[in-house]
Amino acid sequence: MMNTNKGNCLIGQSGGPTVAINASLCGVIEEALQDPNIQTIYGMVNGIEGFLEKNILNLSDLFQEKEKRQFLKTTPAMYLGSCRYKLPSFEENPKVYEEIFKDFQEMNIRYFFYIGGNDSMDTVWKLSQYAKKVSYPIQIIGIPKTIDNDLPYTDHTPGFGSAAKYVATSLLEIAHDSYIYDLPSVTIVEIMGRNAGWLTAASVLARTSYHNGPDFIYLPEVPFVTYEFLKDLRELQKVKKNIIVAVSEGIKNPEGNYIASQSVATHIDGFGHAQLSGVGKALEYMVQTALSCKVRSIELSVLQRSAMHNASRTDLDEAQRIGQEAVKAAQKGITGHMMVLTRESNNPYTLSVSTVPVEQVANQEKKVPREWINPAGNDVTQEMVDYLQPLIIGEVPVTYQDGLPKYCNISHLTQASFDPFL
Amino acid sequence: MMNTNKGNCLIGQSGGPTVAINASLCGVIEEALQDPNIQTIYGMVNGIEGFLEKNILNLSDLFQEKEKRQFLKTTPAMYLGSCRYKLPSFEENPKVYEEIFKDFQEMNIRYFFYIGGNDSMDTVWKLSQYAKKVSYPIQIIGIPKTIDNDLPYTDHTPGFGSAAKYVATSLLEIAHDSYIYDLPSVTIVEIMGRNAGWLTAASVLARTSYHNGPDFIYLPEVPFVTYEFLKDLRELQKVKKNIIVAVSEGIKNPEGNYIASQSVATHIDGFGHAQLSGVGKALEYMVQTALSCKVRSIELSVLQRSAMHNASRTDLDEAQRIGQEAVKAAQKGITGHMMVLTRESNNPYTLSVSTVPVEQVANQEKKVPREWINPAGNDVTQEMVDYLQPLIIGEVPVTYQDGLPKYCNISHLTQASFDPFL
Repeated sequence: MMNTNKGNCLIGQSGGPTVAINASLCGVIEEALQDPNIQTIYGMVNGIEGFLEKNILNLSDLFQEKEKRQFLKTTPAMYLGSCRYKLPSFEENPKVYEEIFKDFQEMNIRYFFYIGGNDSMDTVWKLSQYAKKVSYPIQIIGIPKTIDNDLPYTDHTPGFGSAAKYVATSLLEIAHDSYIYDLPSVTIVEIMGRNAGWLTAASVLARTSYHNGPDFIYLPEVPFVTYEFLKDLRELQKVKKNIIVAVSEGIKNPEGNYIASQSVATHIDGFGHAQLSGVGKALEYMVQTALSCKVRSIELSVLQRSAMHNASRTDLDEAQRIGQEAVKAAQKGITGHMMVLTRESNNPYTLSVSTVPVEQVANQEKKVPREWINPAGNDVTQEMVDYLQPLIIGEVPVTYQDGLPKYCNISHLTQASFDPFL
Repeated sequence: MMNTNKGNCLIGQSGGPTVAINASLCGVIEEALQDPNIQTIYGMVNGIEGFLEKNILNLSDLFQEKEKRQFLKTTPAMYLGSCRYKLPSFEENPKVYEEIFKDFQEMNIRYFFYIGGNDSMDTVWKLSQYAKKVSYPIQIIGIPKTIDNDLPYTDHTPGFGSAAKYVATSLLEIAHDSYIYDLPSVTIVEIMGRNAGWLTAASVLARTSYHNGPDFIYLPEVPFVTYEFLKDLRELQKVKKNIIVAVSEGIKNPEGNYIASQSVATHIDGFGHAQLSGVGKALEYMVQTALSCKVRSIELSVLQRSAMHNASRTDLDEAQRIGQEAVKAAQKGITGHMMVLTRESNNPYTLSVSTVPVEQVANQEKKVPREWINPAGNDVTQEMVDYLQPLIIGEVPVTYQDGLPKYCNISHLTQASFDPFL
């Protein structure tokens, strides 16, 4: 069934940033620009929340030139800004839906693309359900992105490969840094990933022929036993001076409590997720007390998702392609689906792109399979290495100006109005 | 007075790592390899402390090939490892000196190059004083490096430019990350620099035509007044949503106490320096309490000194050149001196290389002049920008293999013996 809707296209970004999310935006724009059924391409600033406030850009005008789209592709974070707004259910609040679809009608929106993670797919699902209910003709497609790599049905998520490359590169450089002193030391590197350990697992790629760092890798999929951890360190210290530990921010003890929460208060964000910080510091104090050697903790923080200067070319190219394919899927009449990547082979590494109904994805999490973690729960297996390796291949030629990377002008985000009385 | 000593050459690295310290090592090796007065080039592993344990590499053999020297130049941290050993005074412990010079004699060491910061220049000074005292014919030269840029007499120190580029790039990427949400937020970025604010000042280079982050910059040279800081934030919040603050790890309150120490215990290292961590966290809690908006703190940590993947080409080339010039200076009969860079002009940016007696440098710190900080003490001036700008220019072509930078094999550091019973 081909789609013959003619009209305008609306694109948004939501959730946390990655370095690949603008490449997907670039892909959608590129394909939509040459699509005869699509007239104007609009971007909502700050996701569906900004759309409700009529905060909209004309992307057809802004990215008519190929050169500008290239800059967009190599700009980190989110050109359109983000939101953490969770749509209420229709039963709870029908007004929001009526308002959104009234605007869709007025703007003649017939194509809706939303680039985001688990929570954003919830938005895609709800909007497509409502469109069906009120028989509004629109193609609504979700485009995955997240450094956490925790969406099901897709081999991996755009944004993950670059974050993985950043983590592995940083671990390699931290290793070079940590081996310089002839003193026993433990370096603990805290990596993002609340419930899924994919990104922490990527630290394994930092190992080379001349060093084995990180020596231990702890993922949130396996309960973290303090006694075992300290035993691991003590055993290795007998034969190795400088020990490097990669640990996910989300590790929990066998009772299910975050290790981080043992030292630092946790907060709850708008989606009910605990905001963590401090597992590195918590382990640092623990090791310092138990082993009396030099201990330091390093939190890789937001650079994991923003460091375009060390992005994976494979990742950016795939993110762009999945954006292009989303427009093609919409033209085939697909709606209420999320784009997915399927790995066809590992050597050579080849992918295909297809779609799955978004309700299968929304609010789901894909965790690391237990068999990709070693039996002791302190390392990953060769299968994990084989899975990760192709995703970090290739570098992205970033344009530099005056010694710094040159990125897209985001003045529509930096100058957004702010009411100090709110 | 030309030096006509024929003999061997010994090189060491000491203090904290930078991404440029191996480029200086590369420069010394290159020049020494073609010097008819120098026979074999030895490297001490783990500085003068490792030398006392006869931990020595033959660098003439290892770096005969140009290709290997190129890898060395683009390898972060310290190929020869480091130490934090402070030589006792001769009066205190003449034995150490006798031992070192006995080894020099046995190994026919006539050239000694030590690449390091303030504390390493103390070693250079003491050894050259002793050589004079016992009339041992040797040229002893200090080669500066430190990301802190706090050595006097030199326009800047090798290693600083790359750290500055990393700080500015990271701040730019953090800015892109922080502007995505339409919510008031404060992002606090903690930057290295205990007593001198040069590296924190480099965050100013992240500003572009479309954003002014970091909005405030706090250096340790000016007392930090909490009341003023919170007032600055409150004022700016009236007109700007996402505020970015760059802060040195070493800021102190007007009573002279570290802000960091208000929340986290400090430690004292072997040189009597307080080991700081936590000013970012301390300010995060402070702002959260006072302003009730989203606040986060980011500690750039050791990647500031290890991120070769974003090094400054200007910095690496200068580091190499200063290493080459050190060998030439030794051949001119200079000893007990440190190499210095003098800026000849800013536009075009040109430098000359010379030397100063090391006793003028040892244990000194060059701080940021008060007039390069704005009167309010929360920003830097245009003079500072003009000083910093040339130092971050140019990128370094790093070789990648399997998606990661390829660095020198440092198995002599990773496999160093370790006695678990010590």
